[in-house]
Amino acid sequence: MQASDTLVMNAPMAARLAAVEAAFNDELHSDLPVVNELSQHVARYRGKMLRPMLTLLCGQAVGTLSDAHTTIATVVEMVHMATLVHDDVLDEADLRRRGVTVNRLHGNEAAVMLGDYLISHSYHLCSSLDSQYAARIIARTTNQVCEGELLQLSNRNNLQLDEETYVTIISRKTGSLIAASCLLGAHLAGADEATAKKLEKFGLSLGIAFQIQDDIMDLVGTTGEAGKTLGIDVQKCKLTLPIIHFLQSAPAEHRELCRSLLISGERNAVERIRNLIAPSDSIDYARARASRLVERAKQSLAELPDSEAKRALDRMADFVLERKH
Amino acid sequence: MQASDTLVMNAPMAARLAAVEAAFNDELHSDLPVVNELSQHVARYRGKMLRPMLTLLCGQAVGTLSDAHTTIATVVEMVHMATLVHDDVLDEADLRRRGVTVNRLHGNEAAVMLGDYLISHSYHLCSSLDSQYAARIIARTTNQVCEGELLQLSNRNNLQLDEETYVTIISRKTGSLIAASCLLGAHLAGADEATAKKLEKFGLSLGIAFQIQDDIMDLVGTTGEAGKTLGIDVQKCKLTLPIIHFLQSAPAEHRELCRSLLISGERNAVERIRNLIAPSDSIDYARARASRLVERAKQSLAELPDSEAKRALDRMADFVLERKH
Repeated sequence: MQASDTLVMNAPMAARLAAVEAAFNDELHSDLPVVNELSQHVARYRGKMLRPMLTLLCGQAVGTLSDAHTTIATVVEMVHMATLVHDDVLDEADLRRRGVTVNRLHGNEAAVMLGDYLISHSYHLCSSLDSQYAARIIARTTNQVCEGELLQLSNRNNLQLDEETYVTIISRKTGSLIAASCLLGAHLAGADEATAKKLEKFGLSLGIAFQIQDDIMDLVGTTGEAGKTLGIDVQKCKLTLPIIHFLQSAPAEHRELCRSLLISGERNAVERIRNLIAPSDSIDYARARASRLVERAKQSLAELPDSEAKRALDRMADFVLERKH
Repeated sequence: MQASDTLVMNAPMAARLAAVEAAFNDELHSDLPVVNELSQHVARYRGKMLRPMLTLLCGQAVGTLSDAHTTIATVVEMVHMATLVHDDVLDEADLRRRGVTVNRLHGNEAAVMLGDYLISHSYHLCSSLDSQYAARIIARTTNQVCEGELLQLSNRNNLQLDEETYVTIISRKTGSLIAASCLLGAHLAGADEATAKKLEKFGLSLGIAFQIQDDIMDLVGTTGEAGKTLGIDVQKCKLTLPIIHFLQSAPAEHRELCRSLLISGERNAVERIRNLIAPSDSIDYARARASRLVERAKQSLAELPDSEAKRALDRMADFVLERKH
């Protein structure tokens, strides 16, 4: 588990995350061997466990954890895995978390069905709780994730994409699930509505920052650091924050070159765009926006009483800006 | 609505189905125009409304309908639409219900996401009910649907596929959702567990018969009658009941030819296999098996008190064998 490498964790948190992992595997078990073989591939994807940790920490920061926290922490991770599997189909990615993707290994068809299997089981697990509240929030969240993906898809090859639409895309696609992870963690620990809403806001700001950072890495990171196929956004002509900023602020000649590279489909377009944007201030612009979002996220925590969990949430916010994968 | 063409319907049932259609459209509405454009495409798919009718009739056959019936009837239709959209991605189909498929029109990526959007909204709608019971059953059902699809996928190009595995595939892929439509209709009308189980069994037998009939049509039907791309099973080397029977019972020379055509990927393989199997008794064998399942389904209704709804369920069972699309 990479979480332990990057974030300080105490023993109870490690035990909780181990319980999440066990619940994850239990839920996916099938009586059909072929289904188990395929779903075991997903175990290799599991990385930072960011969303389960947020559910657990938000619960601890406002109250006491219960078994329902383990269930919901498992659910949010499973939803996340489902989106990764379908994302890789959309991106035609070959590499994910240093391993070969499902679509690459078993074909797009198996990847579509495996993603469906994961999302179905996440709802199945969610509906084992007594109350409908979490099920309703999770389904509302996946509605938003799909909307973000569909909006992004419809804006491929749109060289006019503006920052506002980009933020709408990533808020729904990435922010919504991280926000729900925090909201449900707080709610299940008995937080009042105002406090739960604040933690939801914390998650939303954090999630948007996280995606901006991800998009920066897709442009200027190295595959070795990230452990996944990079340069996909440019290849698919998916405009992200540094590129949107560059196309609005760079000298006319640079902008023109960037546009023609984006639509060229050339093999070395990624490399050339990277070299074009790197010396500009567009990467810094995107980093500064992510950094402001992290500050805003931390402000949402301000009124919580001091606790180990609160401090851990604070550190996780900083971690978003530092991470390389 | 095709249901009215093929099945006798009274005015209250027509009104209920109109309410299902309205709930379907309401649930899918988004604040993003691009999402609405895409999801409107799905409206064109809507055909027989078989599953919603079963939910409503099973409810009427054992008790009184409530608003929850309209909700669940909408949910099962939405789950069904989601599976059609992803099925078309898996089949690379061009035609569905006399219209161009989403994957053909907007690309596989939009079809993957639109299917996800539909499944997400079906759970979202389901979680609006007071009790978790229906949500748990629906999620268990979609688990089974995915298992059926994954098992089918792993048996592509398997010329040794036996009848038992074929029945496992179609029971999960098709039977489970029709069974759940019946079970939930009965449960929500206050049926006792034994009665609800009987209606679930009715739906399962009916669903398996329905899929066998569908597979027969894929082999020997005409596109004009079916309104969708046919011959896909053969093209994808997906063995169905008539072919499984043929490969076990035809003269050795015919079997050998059939096998070599199945793996040939030849353009006219579908036509040639059809001509090979048509004069044999393998189509009749498959029809007889479907017919026995329909009889078994009807037997599951035997203990219900006589009612208009019960008679309608009986007619629907017969309709499965007569339908051409």
